[in-house]
Amino acid sequence: MANTIGKLYTLTTFGESHGTALGGIIDGCPSNVKIDFDFIQSELDRRKPGQSKIVTQRKEADEVKFLSGIFEGITTGTSIGFIIENGNQKSNDYDHLKDTFRPSHADFTYDQKYGNRDYRGGGRTSARETVNWVVAGAIAKQIIPEIKINAFVSSVGEISINKAYQDLDFNLIESNPVRCPDLEKASEMEEYILKIKKEGDTVGGTVTCVIQNVPIGLGEPVFDKLHAQLGKAMLSINAVKGFEYGGGFCASKMKGSEHNDLFNEDGTTKTNLSGGIQGGISNGMDIYFRVAFKPVATLLQKQDVLTNDGKIIEQQGKGRHDPCVVPRAVPIVEALAAMVLVDFTLMDKACR
Amino acid sequence: MANTIGKLYTLTTFGESHGTALGGIIDGCPSNVKIDFDFIQSELDRRKPGQSKIVTQRKEADEVKFLSGIFEGITTGTSIGFIIENGNQKSNDYDHLKDTFRPSHADFTYDQKYGNRDYRGGGRTSARETVNWVVAGAIAKQIIPEIKINAFVSSVGEISINKAYQDLDFNLIESNPVRCPDLEKASEMEEYILKIKKEGDTVGGTVTCVIQNVPIGLGEPVFDKLHAQLGKAMLSINAVKGFEYGGGFCASKMKGSEHNDLFNEDGTTKTNLSGGIQGGISNGMDIYFRVAFKPVATLLQKQDVLTNDGKIIEQQGKGRHDPCVVPRAVPIVEALAAMVLVDFTLMDKACR
Amino acid sequence: MANTIGKLYTLTTFGESHGTALGGIIDGCPSNVKIDFDFIQSELDRRKPGQSKIVTQRKEADEVKFLSGIFEGITTGTSIGFIIENGNQKSNDYDHLKDTFRPSHADFTYDQKYGNRDYRGGGRTSARETVNWVVAGAIAKQIIPEIKINAFVSSVGEISINKAYQDLDFNLIESNPVRCPDLEKASEMEEYILKIKKEGDTVGGTVTCVIQNVPIGLGEPVFDKLHAQLGKAMLSINAVKGFEYGGGFCASKMKGSEHNDLFNEDGTTKTNLSGGIQGGISNGMDIYFRVAFKPVATLLQKQDVLTNDGKIIEQQGKGRHDPCVVPRAVPIVEALAAMVLVDFTLMDKACR
Amino acid sequence: MANTIGKLYTLTTFGESHGTALGGIIDGCPSNVKIDFDFIQSELDRRKPGQSKIVTQRKEADEVKFLSGIFEGITTGTSIGFIIENGNQKSNDYDHLKDTFRPSHADFTYDQKYGNRDYRGGGRTSARETVNWVVAGAIAKQIIPEIKINAFVSSVGEISINKAYQDLDFNLIESNPVRCPDLEKASEMEEYILKIKKEGDTVGGTVTCVIQNVPIGLGEPVFDKLHAQLGKAMLSINAVKGFEYGGGFCASKMKGSEHNDLFNEDGTTKTNLSGGIQGGISNGMDIYFRVAFKPVATLLQKQDVLTNDGKIIEQQGKGRHDPCVVPRAVPIVEALAAMVLVDFTLMDKACR
Repeated sequence: MANTIGKLYTLTTFGESHGTALGGIIDGCPSNVKIDFDFIQSELDRRKPGQSKIVTQRKEADEVKFLSGIFEGITTGTSIGFIIENGNQKSNDYDHLKDTFRPSHADFTYDQKYGNRDYRGGGRTSARETVNWVVAGAIAKQIIPEIKINAFVSSVGEISINKAYQDLDFNLIESNPVRCPDLEKASEMEEYILKIKKEGDTVGGTVTCVIQNVPIGLGEPVFDKLHAQLGKAMLSINAVKGFEYGGGFCASKMKGSEHNDLFNEDGTTKTNLSGGIQGGISNGMDIYFRVAFKPVATLLQKQDVLTNDGKIIEQQGKGRHDPCVVPRAVPIVEALAAMVLVDFTLMDKACR
Repeated sequence: MANTIGKLYTLTTFGESHGTALGGIIDGCPSNVKIDFDFIQSELDRRKPGQSKIVTQRKEADEVKFLSGIFEGITTGTSIGFIIENGNQKSNDYDHLKDTFRPSHADFTYDQKYGNRDYRGGGRTSARETVNWVVAGAIAKQIIPEIKINAFVSSVGEISINKAYQDLDFNLIESNPVRCPDLEKASEMEEYILKIKKEGDTVGGTVTCVIQNVPIGLGEPVFDKLHAQLGKAMLSINAVKGFEYGGGFCASKMKGSEHNDLFNEDGTTKTNLSGGIQGGISNGMDIYFRVAFKPVATLLQKQDVLTNDGKIIEQQGKGRHDPCVVPRAVPIVEALAAMVLVDFTLMDKACR
Repeated sequence: MANTIGKLYTLTTFGESHGTALGGIIDGCPSNVKIDFDFIQSELDRRKPGQSKIVTQRKEADEVKFLSGIFEGITTGTSIGFIIENGNQKSNDYDHLKDTFRPSHADFTYDQKYGNRDYRGGGRTSARETVNWVVAGAIAKQIIPEIKINAFVSSVGEISINKAYQDLDFNLIESNPVRCPDLEKASEMEEYILKIKKEGDTVGGTVTCVIQNVPIGLGEPVFDKLHAQLGKAMLSINAVKGFEYGGGFCASKMKGSEHNDLFNEDGTTKTNLSGGIQGGISNGMDIYFRVAFKPVATLLQKQDVLTNDGKIIEQQGKGRHDPCVVPRAVPIVEALAAMVLVDFTLMDKACR
Repeated sequence: MANTIGKLYTLTTFGESHGTALGGIIDGCPSNVKIDFDFIQSELDRRKPGQSKIVTQRKEADEVKFLSGIFEGITTGTSIGFIIENGNQKSNDYDHLKDTFRPSHADFTYDQKYGNRDYRGGGRTSARETVNWVVAGAIAKQIIPEIKINAFVSSVGEISINKAYQDLDFNLIESNPVRCPDLEKASEMEEYILKIKKEGDTVGGTVTCVIQNVPIGLGEPVFDKLHAQLGKAMLSINAVKGFEYGGGFCASKMKGSEHNDLFNEDGTTKTNLSGGIQGGISNGMDIYFRVAFKPVATLLQKQDVLTNDGKIIEQQGKGRHDPCVVPRAVPIVEALAAMVLVDFTLMDKACR
């Protein structure tokens, strides 16, 4: 079940970057959820390539086709099958990948593990897979509409928002192609990405996600802690190298007397370095976490690659690639967070 | 199955800090593994309280009793049941916790979720649970003896090792109570912890783990990526707030041309910012990751706590607590890493 | 995961009888299996309606379209997505089902459980779902070509084969529309089914399955016994009411001295009332089991049905239905058996 | 997870017949269930050897010791660990099994699969394992007290109850050592078992289970049908060879017009050949099923056995064995049924 996420609200997926279609099966969606198809499409559009100058110029329609589980616009409680057909497949762009392994890609490891791979555009290892997640996440959001999930770009390279999330206006996230609610930083980031793109290079960044209005009690003790499942989900996204929540890595430098979140009489806390989770279970305060993305490995520069027969040759990256993934990663982070939260919401109903 | 970790090599656990016993069931351990019981005990001793002046002075025997699955010293392939009896239980130390919720503890969230909890010493939320993990990890290490797993303390508060792990001598890890192989830093850290302890305060830190001699091909695509499972496992440890592997959060600041690991002709790479994993699958290079621990929440200082009936009162922490968890966390990190690696090793045998 | 079967070789499915398409995702198929697509289609044809006079006259193309996981005819080890589009949908035939519950159908229970259902042709409860299983089974058979799986009709109503399976020629199974290798009984059964069909009635039957050339050691102790998983799989087929293997229900009437299978010196047994499985693990002898199917609930006669608003009215079944399901059930039984065997084959590789 | 049953209410077990202890971990038990420990013990006593002349004369205390998850008599929602120590271990009785494989036992298959086994008393393959199930079942019954589960012996050898279960008084089940509510048949059975015992032989039988007051809607579509999970659970019991529910194998001989259960206006049905389940989901009518047990394989007669080095020798069974398992199987069947029902009850809460 290496292609499944979740326990009660599960998504199982398939699909290669240049195959006929990608798709998935959502199992465990409660019945009687009225589906807003336009919302799902709008979420897909946020992830879609070709939205702006700072992302890849590939054109993909990214239209999802639901095949089951929704009857007359309302979920039936049975499994929801869906596909996204691959339209604009410039497979020829990828012929040079057949016999070579690009540095810091999954080409080499997949080849070693499986001995057979669809090399076109990365095949199954392509981040195109995340289109499936956005579909399942968009449905998840509709199951728990009261919970508010906002992700945004908090850094690109060395350029970083210096404000607390409480001081940001989430309404500004979608106002710029970087998806950064600090507009000054946003334009710095945009400029920097364009510069990097011109160089044929790429750059990393971080996405911060804030989840508000979470009921107390989501999460399980010991091995299915809420933050452990969030972390696992985020670490499943292509190019992610790190995850921290609440105080995060900074907390490791602090004293207990500085880090502890003192209570108010109503059970809320005066500070929230816990990040809304204590002992793996939500405490009703805002959940927030940060996800680190490495720079995209495919460069539109010359680079040494390894050939099938153990030679190092120079190769120029081709195709249409993102100079920086974080703007398009924002809806993906939200989608996974929504899936995890629905999973725990259902679990919580079961166990109480 | 919120008390189970793993898919083919699974550990299911039970136990409260002040109950009769903790224990677990290891399922999926291959047959015909000769068990070195002394090694298991030595791993438990590394985690044990009371080892040195910088950890809690509780005395616990922490002797594991195997009840099944090992016949005449050799595993039979059936489930391995074990218990660790709770000896030195000063439950009275914890009476003050019955009606109060300590800040940044799981007291409040467990009470809200379950409505009934064993409050003594944190009950199920206590890090005493990790004794079970060390048992399962010590067996896991014996299943894959060729893989070398070394964790160590890489920072305490602001004091941090500045060397690459390649420049450290792992043989020095156990030479000092902090478990830091940089001896100069180790004594700085030790001194600092003692100072913090005297203040009745606590401090956080980080543990770095290096895994060597990993075969190529461990890990699954998409949702069971090797680093995602390692991350989830680490985020299950009490007090962990962050996880990063390879380039980690630093990678988010880099350009692709800096971050990419160029190949040698034999498939190894010249650099290893990937951290030994590409596309979720091991590439044969060293795996390394870093885990951030917040400071222990229990202070031996006066602090405001919340009462059951919604009052804020001042309370003085009692009992015997660690001023800094990272030295004792080292064997726990290794244990979980070993379990994850065995799980993927078995999975890999299944799927090829 | 109520729409998933298997642990390492898993099939997750979706689809309603009269939706756009059915389909599934096969996860855990090893890489480098060369796929014989004609064989898959021929298995689908065995299940297909309209094959003969004794089965439903619905015409369905039942062509499977693979969307991923197979590259240039060979599996890649990643998930295999597939769909079967619904062609000939006479949905109007089913309008009368919107507000009524047919006796001994799942209409009532689905409506009570989910509150929303695709009533057309039974929706998700339709045996049309089994088309997905035949696809996954046909691939499973190609993973373990050395294991021979033969199912056949062993009884229809009161007409029953009286020979041991060893005295039957499995090559005759496909020689007649009933799929009964005892040709005399086959023609009796055929005649009887046609008579029943003329009456607008239906009739039950049994399918026997024989699995040969199974390696010793498949199956897990305690809760994943080989026969328990076979039983669960068979009990998942629509209309199945019973499962027995080896001596089965007859064994309950026997003495130990009659039932025990004495060994030969090579570890084979002189008799095989165990049905090839001892303690849940295959012993290398033939595995055989029998599956009981009730008569199809939809009659082309007048029958009392329950309406949505709690009235009993008389209704005449419409649509095209099977007078007896067992002939078409034969490939379904084989498909599920193949999936279970692959699952245990992979598990066995993992744990030894 | 071959030693785990259940999905939300799970039991994971360990233990060999002659090891230190057996035991298990119950995960997913809701919090705030007040536990009646006397009831648990009384259930264990029903399964216990030595209760009467017709069962094995081994003496085992079978006292369960709870180690966690229950605080001051009430469940806390965390995992419940328990052990049952093995007292009266006449291991010497089993020395003759070290190098021989008994016919129709799991000795041979375990040895082939694992290469190492605890041969004493069958080790992990012993039905002593079921003591764990009775513990988890006794707790399950307390979670769903409104559902009434009654199992009883319906046949021993050729002696069979000829009445419908509706004509039996379940209060008489415990009135006789056979656990057969038809007292005339009960004494016939008892006499027959004693006769068989005197011969050093054994005999099979069937257990019928009736579950009443089940809410409508338990069970999942497609692969986790209520009867499929009940069947899998029953087929996990040692010596079980068959399972049928509702009309069962008889249904396969019937016509649809005879078998269909016509509705009453309130949604109940006039007949109940469906056995309380339609399309895998409970319909509110009584659930009933029948389980076939083969005769115990260990005879207290001389029998040919296979030796480790491939010889056939004559051996006399030793030890204390049941001449007929069905009387002691009654509480085991009930326990597993209770676990399955709790699992689906929790699942149902999650998905609606």
